[in-house]
Amino acid sequence: MSAPTKVTPISGFPELLPADRLLELHVLDTIREVFELHGFAPLETRAVEPVERLLGKGGDADKEIYGVTRLTGEESSRDADLGLHFDLTVPFARYVLEHAGKLHFPFRRYQVQKVWRGERPQEGRFREFTQADIDIVDAGELAAHFEAEVPLVVAEVFRRLPVGPFRIQVNNRKVPEGFYLGIGLTDVQGTLRIVDKLDKIGPEQVAAQLVQAGASAEQARLALALAEVRSQDLSFVEAVRGLGVEHPVLDEGLEALAAVVRAGAESAPGTLVADLRIARGLDYYTGTVYETQLLGAEEWGSVCSGGRYDSLASDGRTTYPGVGISIGVTRLVHLLLTRRGLRASRSTPAAVLVAVVDEASRRRSDLVAAALRGRGVPCEVAPSAARFGKQIRYADRRGIPFVWFPGAGEDDADQVKDIRSGEQVDADATTWVCPPQDLRPGIVTPAG
Amino acid sequence: MSAPTKVTPISGFPELLPADRLLELHVLDTIREVFELHGFAPLETRAVEPVERLLGKGGDADKEIYGVTRLTGEESSRDADLGLHFDLTVPFARYVLEHAGKLHFPFRRYQVQKVWRGERPQEGRFREFTQADIDIVDAGELAAHFEAEVPLVVAEVFRRLPVGPFRIQVNNRKVPEGFYLGIGLTDVQGTLRIVDKLDKIGPEQVAAQLVQAGASAEQARLALALAEVRSQDLSFVEAVRGLGVEHPVLDEGLEALAAVVRAGAESAPGTLVADLRIARGLDYYTGTVYETQLLGAEEWGSVCSGGRYDSLASDGRTTYPGVGISIGVTRLVHLLLTRRGLRASRSTPAAVLVAVVDEASRRRSDLVAAALRGRGVPCEVAPSAARFGKQIRYADRRGIPFVWFPGAGEDDADQVKDIRSGEQVDADATTWVCPPQDLRPGIVTPAG
Repeated sequence: MSAPTKVTPISGFPELLPADRLLELHVLDTIREVFELHGFAPLETRAVEPVERLLGKGGDADKEIYGVTRLTGEESSRDADLGLHFDLTVPFARYVLEHAGKLHFPFRRYQVQKVWRGERPQEGRFREFTQADIDIVDAGELAAHFEAEVPLVVAEVFRRLPVGPFRIQVNNRKVPEGFYLGIGLTDVQGTLRIVDKLDKIGPEQVAAQLVQAGASAEQARLALALAEVRSQDLSFVEAVRGLGVEHPVLDEGLEALAAVVRAGAESAPGTLVADLRIARGLDYYTGTVYETQLLGAEEWGSVCSGGRYDSLASDGRTTYPGVGISIGVTRLVHLLLTRRGLRASRSTPAAVLVAVVDEASRRRSDLVAAALRGRGVPCEVAPSAARFGKQIRYADRRGIPFVWFPGAGEDDADQVKDIRSGEQVDADATTWVCPPQDLRPGIVTPAG
Repeated sequence: MSAPTKVTPISGFPELLPADRLLELHVLDTIREVFELHGFAPLETRAVEPVERLLGKGGDADKEIYGVTRLTGEESSRDADLGLHFDLTVPFARYVLEHAGKLHFPFRRYQVQKVWRGERPQEGRFREFTQADIDIVDAGELAAHFEAEVPLVVAEVFRRLPVGPFRIQVNNRKVPEGFYLGIGLTDVQGTLRIVDKLDKIGPEQVAAQLVQAGASAEQARLALALAEVRSQDLSFVEAVRGLGVEHPVLDEGLEALAAVVRAGAESAPGTLVADLRIARGLDYYTGTVYETQLLGAEEWGSVCSGGRYDSLASDGRTTYPGVGISIGVTRLVHLLLTRRGLRASRSTPAAVLVAVVDEASRRRSDLVAAALRGRGVPCEVAPSAARFGKQIRYADRRGIPFVWFPGAGEDDADQVKDIRSGEQVDADATTWVCPPQDLRPGIVTPAG
């Protein structure tokens, strides 16, 4: 059997080398730890959904769906039209409907899985990527305090990661909706879509497009003025009030947004910012929406987004409103690798390489390794009884800090060498303590 | 927006409830811990491969491939024909070829991912399932001792899991190959395929099919006699020799298999069994092959399989021989859930529910929760300030063992109640120690 010789990457389907995957695992472990500390239950959903369930749920036309079909399926056993999920919220909403009778509400879950989108690949955008989501859903009514809790969980994740300063921007869709209605712009979705381009095309172009869509110059000016409002404290309420627009939906939105920003200022000062231009493309959001920027890497777009949805999961009798947020793990990790220059301190979990003196004594090295593992020290045994210089180089190339030499000391005692310092001392595999900072691969910053 | 009301499971695409997913996570964590203790580096490959790379690599015609296409892709931006991977070995071999220049050999990696096969769903067989693989590949030559190491790593995983007694069956493809050639049966693959049905159709039918395929009655008798040989020790060598067949490939196979069984007997007595009927369907195996049975659940098939492959990864200049083994995590977990009746002790990671006295004092409960989390105790805050009986029921339904009552003691002291025993005592969130056995969800057996 001969393999095809052409081996090429597929654009948009990233793969990492082992050391970079270790950094990604560190990010994933941190996320999971914080999610579990906050009592979110783990869940996975299948990778495929009926295409009809995916269509129309994504909002943006560019969230292209990948269809899935058996290549050799007989006609009679054809599956229904299936597609790969493009996010974890739509499948989760379906899961809630399907298993509602066996879940306890309010239901808190986290979910870390791959998703697929046929978008044009570009820096920070991929066709296959990992998302890490938390959501809280309830049956009938969802308490407002969950809308403040969800971004604070993410803030705790980001504080534990080497991402530097970040900002979670919060808005409530009811604010622009009520505001637009209050100034007589009834095409709320259309207006949001144009204002959403502010960062890309600038205020003049946005104003021009709004006028083109039927707004007066004054309406366009006010819509832009709303989008300019932002504050870390509650002053955004006065700023909006100062624009002189009145509408009951606006009042509702400002009150809800103020509650989230107030809770954020109490628990994590400076982290949550009311930013009235944030809208989110996905059309299932109905209230609070979130985006997250890493300061200095704003052009990568949001690394964590979400919001409240009131009617995504409904079986006609009961509605399950929810609020959730999703960390774009793949984008975040690529940013840490390519922009921040972070890397793992080694390319393997092994902290120790147990040298082999000669093939006849490999069993002795195996027993040393078993003793170390029994005490929680990751290690491997040298692949061959090469001369010690070569075995040390094997460890060095992988960043393994310690090499263990069976019987190298006096009276046949074992010795262990820290190959960074060169220090070599007598050691016993049943008592040796690996320095805690060397037990797992660490994260290395360019400076340190 | 209204959701489609029809919500139905998709056959072969299993989903778990939260408590069952917690059991699966326990299995996955155990697997990862053991793999890392043995110095395997983590890796993930993309979910898709070019279809031409997948075809012909699966051996069995029934490993039907799922093709993937963008539903709305323009003709000009069409992807090459892509399919979802059906195992992790074929993508890993491609990864090794693609990144060979950046990897250090011998290269040890583990990989835990979903795979997809369009097979007919039945008990223990799924169309989407998780595999957990380890492989060791080298450039040019692969040392034989790795063939003994790989099943012993899996034996350590299984000893740490509540799976009960198990048996790893080992064979070497060169044994039947050399044996068949020695008795004049030159269609080795065809003969293996018939003998592989022994468990399903019995020896008479196998003999009949062999004769139908051109074997003499005596050749069929000998082929069956070989398939009957098994032993925990090296006695299988004498048993095969006793059949009086000679061939250099047979000698080579017996010697390699003896080395694996000898290493197994030293390190994990009773775990590895030479079983000369094991062949494995996948046609990329060239030497040692493994299958694993849980005793008492043999009809579920192998829960962990693999083998040595010598030419799966070759770029025409260099060949990267490898040996690997794959745990069928989804099958294993379904077996533990449905046959062994195992379950997680609760349906959430939370060990504590912090009660809310009234909505005005929710902030106090949030601070208790933050203090507990800061000390590593997973917890959640009650969703509403319902009466305490209802809040306790909220915890009880989810299996959360402790409920925390802010200010319930004298002098406004907090109290914590173990809702299993009913014991309620004064406690301080900055010093309280959660009993270690309650910190994470445990695994509950039907007896306990």
